[in-house]
Amino acid sequence: MSIPNFRPTPASLPPPNAGLVLRQPKGLPANFQPLNPLQFILRAAEIYPDKLALLHSDVKYPVAYSFAVWCQRIQNLAYALIKAGIKPGDRVAVIAPNSGKLITVPLDANHGVLAAQAVPCLINTRLKPSEVAYILEHSGSSIILVDHEYVHLLPQDPKVPVVVCHDTGRAGDPYEEFLTSGRAYSQERGWAGLEYTSDEYAPATLCYTSGTTGRPKGVVTTLRGSYLAAVANAYESRIHLESTYLWILPMFHAAGWTFPWATVFGFATQITMRTVDYPLIWKHFLNSGVTHYCGAPTVQIGIVNDPAAKRLPQSISAIIAGAAPTASLIASLEEIGIQPIHVYGLTQYGPFTRNYTQPSWDGLSLQERSKFMAYQGHPFATAQDARVVYPPKSDDDVLVDVPRDGKTVGEIVTRGNIIMKEYFRDPEATKKAFRGGSFNTGDLAVIHPGGAVAVVDRSKDIIISGGENASSLAIEQELASHPCVLEVSVVARSHHKWGERPYAFVILKPKSKAKWKNRHSAFEQSLKSHAKERLPGFACPEWVQVVDELPKTSTGKILKVDLRKRVAALAKL
Amino acid sequence: MSIPNFRPTPASLPPPNAGLVLRQPKGLPANFQPLNPLQFILRAAEIYPDKLALLHSDVKYPVAYSFAVWCQRIQNLAYALIKAGIKPGDRVAVIAPNSGKLITVPLDANHGVLAAQAVPCLINTRLKPSEVAYILEHSGSSIILVDHEYVHLLPQDPKVPVVVCHDTGRAGDPYEEFLTSGRAYSQERGWAGLEYTSDEYAPATLCYTSGTTGRPKGVVTTLRGSYLAAVANAYESRIHLESTYLWILPMFHAAGWTFPWATVFGFATQITMRTVDYPLIWKHFLNSGVTHYCGAPTVQIGIVNDPAAKRLPQSISAIIAGAAPTASLIASLEEIGIQPIHVYGLTQYGPFTRNYTQPSWDGLSLQERSKFMAYQGHPFATAQDARVVYPPKSDDDVLVDVPRDGKTVGEIVTRGNIIMKEYFRDPEATKKAFRGGSFNTGDLAVIHPGGAVAVVDRSKDIIISGGENASSLAIEQELASHPCVLEVSVVARSHHKWGERPYAFVILKPKSKAKWKNRHSAFEQSLKSHAKERLPGFACPEWVQVVDELPKTSTGKILKVDLRKRVAALAKL
Repeated sequence: MSIPNFRPTPASLPPPNAGLVLRQPKGLPANFQPLNPLQFILRAAEIYPDKLALLHSDVKYPVAYSFAVWCQRIQNLAYALIKAGIKPGDRVAVIAPNSGKLITVPLDANHGVLAAQAVPCLINTRLKPSEVAYILEHSGSSIILVDHEYVHLLPQDPKVPVVVCHDTGRAGDPYEEFLTSGRAYSQERGWAGLEYTSDEYAPATLCYTSGTTGRPKGVVTTLRGSYLAAVANAYESRIHLESTYLWILPMFHAAGWTFPWATVFGFATQITMRTVDYPLIWKHFLNSGVTHYCGAPTVQIGIVNDPAAKRLPQSISAIIAGAAPTASLIASLEEIGIQPIHVYGLTQYGPFTRNYTQPSWDGLSLQERSKFMAYQGHPFATAQDARVVYPPKSDDDVLVDVPRDGKTVGEIVTRGNIIMKEYFRDPEATKKAFRGGSFNTGDLAVIHPGGAVAVVDRSKDIIISGGENASSLAIEQELASHPCVLEVSVVARSHHKWGERPYAFVILKPKSKAKWKNRHSAFEQSLKSHAKERLPGFACPEWVQVVDELPKTSTGKILKVDLRKRVAALAKL
Repeated sequence: MSIPNFRPTPASLPPPNAGLVLRQPKGLPANFQPLNPLQFILRAAEIYPDKLALLHSDVKYPVAYSFAVWCQRIQNLAYALIKAGIKPGDRVAVIAPNSGKLITVPLDANHGVLAAQAVPCLINTRLKPSEVAYILEHSGSSIILVDHEYVHLLPQDPKVPVVVCHDTGRAGDPYEEFLTSGRAYSQERGWAGLEYTSDEYAPATLCYTSGTTGRPKGVVTTLRGSYLAAVANAYESRIHLESTYLWILPMFHAAGWTFPWATVFGFATQITMRTVDYPLIWKHFLNSGVTHYCGAPTVQIGIVNDPAAKRLPQSISAIIAGAAPTASLIASLEEIGIQPIHVYGLTQYGPFTRNYTQPSWDGLSLQERSKFMAYQGHPFATAQDARVVYPPKSDDDVLVDVPRDGKTVGEIVTRGNIIMKEYFRDPEATKKAFRGGSFNTGDLAVIHPGGAVAVVDRSKDIIISGGENASSLAIEQELASHPCVLEVSVVARSHHKWGERPYAFVILKPKSKAKWKNRHSAFEQSLKSHAKERLPGFACPEWVQVVDELPKTSTGKILKVDLRKRVAALAKL
């Protein structure tokens, strides 16, 4: 695919016979190559130089780059950063919109910043200026790359150089001038003028948690972990030369779950958009040969409920994380030809477990099968252990696994190469996170007889109703199967008699809105009966509130902290 | 698939809720898991315990094992070895026939020996007793696992314990008794009673080169390299849950190119046979849902020319290495639905480069396309650099790449994680192999403008004819396109005027034998005319000899050293 009248800037064109090998650090043995996901773009540019790597077409100034051209731009970025004084280990802040809105910045950064041996710090664009200021300060970023629409998020006096990108890809755009300055600075030394880091445990990315509680924490991943996770994501999702990946997931969310690298590892084409725009998503699904995308269930719900939704001519794999897909979502996806791949992970490592389809599910009803498909499953290709353990009583306590009974609730702890390096500048939080020699996720789960992990809730999302632990997640799963429910979120409300009771916030399906108009108590009755057939009494919602939308983080996670505040503001019971 | 009346031995049945995690070495950080291909079988047994892992059906005592059962047998082997006194780092010799003839030994060994932190030394079954004795002595193997048909290869007094396998999988078989003893010795401590090695550069396997010149050298691979190579092979060959891999390649050849692990990484089913038996291969192709196999071109020629060969109902991927496939072989494979994947590697690391299909080949004739498909190509997924360099003048000389002109001949040098650790007990050969900081392959090659490497010959296979360098490989490629030629090998013969001249040994296609019967000079004429149309004069064969078979190594490589001896014995010219 090419864009009429578009030519990459002269600085983006690689010289003929461009070498694509970085300088090796002196003294490395021939059988040790520090794992580094930067290797993938060099390989892609070498083997498939002319293949379409990036397409950013739905903007005033569309661009399309081959692997060779994109790779040159990445090299230019590395040199431009070095020229700007960036040293190995420095942080480079990137503020660019959700789904590759500014294609060049977040995607370039995940490669070009690494090529300068620096660390991309991808900042959530939906944060408030004060939060952005905190992250810029805490990360100690030495330079800021920012999309023109997000300049207002920056402090008045950022104290460090700022490069604005107008998302044009044309001469005159300050970001393009920055890249061009890098090319000039390189004096055509090319990749051989840059050096691989010899330490595969050097930082790869710095992403801040969404901070639903307290200040966001800076998650530092490793090059080794990013390499292995990206390879696993490409393998598990079967991303190859013929694949086309559509960017719906924000790249600042856990470094795009390593898909900026996984797609390049597989030589796939990437398509980016400035916003999560459902009609545009459907345009690409139907016309651009999309084969893969990632997204939280809430985004998936938006996709299947868009008026343009219809049976797809090709099969698309949807990698789902952030929460378990409900039965009705799985049915809606499968009906139009989208195959859900349910994975589970955290900012601290991206996808880590996967729900592996079992032969024993053949012949089950969708309802039964979707219960199994909601499990977070088993550690995936290059991940190591995901255990469910009893909470340790002291720091030195040996972790003990809960029985595989699908009932006993414990905490998920993980270990393996793809686990983060540390919380940036927070040794105390790091120590706490690695208590007992594993990473403590804070996610509560059971483990089923087959070894599949199933999250029941974040510790703070458990509702203690009449002395019983009710999982808000399990309640949501059941309420979501009511035919009129589009999306639902359940939190605890204090109760003088029961301690806590479940409070349900519900969005109705568009087609069901008319049916229940001005008949709230009838709908509440219907939903409660639905719940009673499926849940123990203590887990049935005591209150049902129909809303038009639910508060969400920039990454599509429902902000239960906000819902809890709303509930806390209600009269005491 | 199950085998009627077959039940695994009681010791092969895992206990309910068997833990599948080895003890972690103390003090490892949560984000460091030493890469080790042993992890794959544990994951497969956890996620797909009941899936058919191994099928060995074409013998008097057929067996079929699920992942759970096979994994238990591997554990038993580890304990049995420990009981027998095997310590970490010890070598365990395995002498079992070509393609998993004795399924349990070579496949078990690649996992079970690792679980005892020992090193499997897989010995070529076509060697002479004196050669086997040399390897047993040189490797210092502490125990020998041997198939009952190969006991005669052992020295009279092997000085170390010998476990004979009768390939029955039934009680009473000494190998089964050995496994059973391991189970008893474990006292049901299970995997938790074994420990991961904390060093990912510890040895994974010890395989001896075929030693076409001088004594065989022992190649020691690393756990890290084996892990990364296996993942890459699974990714590149697209081996997944639904795949069935047929063992044709000998497992003792470069540790089966890491496919014993790659298949398990992908949860594929493996089928083994005691010999390379073409009718049996076709039986499995047609009835067992085979999707993948590996083999040198000579084996591929046998497959496509078997009387049972016909258009396959499914697509099969054939991983080809050892030599480049000829145009006629590619055509024959594609015609029946076999997709060739041409890779290049050495015992020192297994597959390292791959021929990547290019869009520019679309619309080319088979003849033109197959020229490109014969290139060894680019470093594959987890491999790093494959360069073609001028021969260094001294040990300290910096390696200089030859130009990418497809003409200038240099030597292939490689570096990356999947390169071997060392030559066992041979520091001098190791030092020589790693001269200049890369692994020196001894393979002569050119590099094409697109960066693809193309082997022209082993240094010793170049024919210096009239002062020109003629590649015996290039001559063979052209002669193989003659319609009556099944297989061909070309070596140099001394010549008083030209220095050397090409001498061609040819096997005729079965259907062409009658045509040329008693008409040798007519055939010679026909082949020489064919050559003259395609090759420069100095590269045309001066002599043509029709033979019934060519001398080959156990791994299917043509033994040019034998052909050279035959030629040297002829009258001097």
